[in-house]
Amino acid sequence: MRKDFNLTILGKSSAVPTSESYPSSQALQYDNAVFLIDCGEGCQMQLRKNKISFKQIRHIFISHLHGDHFYGLFGLLSTMALLGRKNALNIYAHEKLEHILKFVSTQAGKTLDFPIVFHALSYDEKTLILETKRMKVYSFPLRHRIPTCGFLFEEKVNGFNIRPEMIEKYQLSYLEIRRTKQGADLIRDGKQLAENKQLCFPPQKSRAYAYCSDTTYDAKIAGYVKHVDLLYHEATFGSDMEGKEEAYFHSTAKQAAQVAKSAKAGKLIIGHFSTRYKNVDLLLAEAQTIFPKTFAAEENQCIPVGNVNEK
Amino acid sequence: MRKDFNLTILGKSSAVPTSESYPSSQALQYDNAVFLIDCGEGCQMQLRKNKISFKQIRHIFISHLHGDHFYGLFGLLSTMALLGRKNALNIYAHEKLEHILKFVSTQAGKTLDFPIVFHALSYDEKTLILETKRMKVYSFPLRHRIPTCGFLFEEKVNGFNIRPEMIEKYQLSYLEIRRTKQGADLIRDGKQLAENKQLCFPPQKSRAYAYCSDTTYDAKIAGYVKHVDLLYHEATFGSDMEGKEEAYFHSTAKQAAQVAKSAKAGKLIIGHFSTRYKNVDLLLAEAQTIFPKTFAAEENQCIPVGNVNEK
Repeated sequence: MRKDFNLTILGKSSAVPTSESYPSSQALQYDNAVFLIDCGEGCQMQLRKNKISFKQIRHIFISHLHGDHFYGLFGLLSTMALLGRKNALNIYAHEKLEHILKFVSTQAGKTLDFPIVFHALSYDEKTLILETKRMKVYSFPLRHRIPTCGFLFEEKVNGFNIRPEMIEKYQLSYLEIRRTKQGADLIRDGKQLAENKQLCFPPQKSRAYAYCSDTTYDAKIAGYVKHVDLLYHEATFGSDMEGKEEAYFHSTAKQAAQVAKSAKAGKLIIGHFSTRYKNVDLLLAEAQTIFPKTFAAEENQCIPVGNVNEK
Repeated sequence: MRKDFNLTILGKSSAVPTSESYPSSQALQYDNAVFLIDCGEGCQMQLRKNKISFKQIRHIFISHLHGDHFYGLFGLLSTMALLGRKNALNIYAHEKLEHILKFVSTQAGKTLDFPIVFHALSYDEKTLILETKRMKVYSFPLRHRIPTCGFLFEEKVNGFNIRPEMIEKYQLSYLEIRRTKQGADLIRDGKQLAENKQLCFPPQKSRAYAYCSDTTYDAKIAGYVKHVDLLYHEATFGSDMEGKEEAYFHSTAKQAAQVAKSAKAGKLIIGHFSTRYKNVDLLLAEAQTIFPKTFAAEENQCIPVGNVNEK
């Protein structure tokens, strides 16, 4: 049985939030872990609305230091402290963020009684920034007004999974189980009793999610996120802004779709829409002309990463 | 016709917000002006939900520098700048806030392109901090863990209002109108033609609103807010916490009611409820035993200040 791997959009708006829509924030859930990606204002209320436990958040990834991507951190950290958190929290961000958080919490008379481990991002190349038992997380450079990173979350497939009935049938020893998990056939006294593919389930495909916000179009991005099952790419503008998007360091819906197409992504979610678009159907339609499996981000929606039918 | 004078509760929760409830923030509307009182996280989304124009906000009052009372300022000011604000904004708060706001916006690479005028609060005594054509605003000290002020908004009644038919009837001159507005009878050639009360509408009662959050019980507060039409007083706890509320520097619902009773307030709104109370009916009932005209704060509710029937 595959672990749950789901993305919840907590905030999809661009810098100016509306009454209905929060600034950028996403929760990526893998089994019992929650990876928080950006933390715009109101993120803690959105986490509560989606019944996502603050305790399960051990890693927060901040793409860049524009307020609509991190102003929710002040309140979230303060609430974590008030709820009695003791576990360490890892924050991956521009090194300046450490100073900002410490300055504000000190001035506001709050000491955060739990350890915060800051990890300064690099903006030069794709970099492995976290490896857990089941997940590898990479940062990669985007092209925005200030230093900005995207993030790639790649599931680690842990060897071969043996069919329980085969353990029973061949009365596999501890050593035989270990070898089978590494891909070996079952050989006893120099005789092949079963091939590995008979003993094991078909190998699972590793699933991956990538987050790209905010950025102007950059052909390199597709290379960083090759074959991801689910890609989020900002689409601040529609084709009416073609030619002007570079000046704002943002992308059009078609450019987001081009990245998804070049990367051979499974599915594309677009968001970070400018408030100039009262209805995003047009942006969605434009992206779908290039990459049909494009969807518009909806807040409080839970999207599986990868094929849900593949167990 | 009296000017509109209404309070909208934008956030009523205590330090830990819930999925349904925002931290402290209120908008006090007088005619076309909006006075913003505290600015917890999510305030800008709540302003939008209540269709309150950001442009009409020229004065923001911050009671104290605990995050749940000001963490919404970062996003609000940033949005004001993005919307092209040019008009000055006045902020009344502890002097530290100026440093915090400047530090964060500089670090986040945002210059706020409109003038912000900081007014440092005094925590010693009741102080007139703003006087406009139609309103006087006072700060007064509360008793909390850190320096904290309450705010009193007092409508200025602008002299006597002359009945238009009297101007016609007596063909009042400019000078006579001025004198009548100051309370004089109409005297010509040493002869009294009409008493002032015949010439004018009955004098309007000045309306007032006071905001008290966060504070432990202090008998002095009633003196600062004597005879206000509408009083907001925090009621973090119920009677189950009696005797312990001082340690938290907060009040019980009964203490809030006692302040309203001593002040001879018209109406009391209680809020800032601890999340330990899933249902605030009990806190409301406790307050009503002492001050029957007590109501529980509800977000997005618009409450008139003073008697709506008195035009």
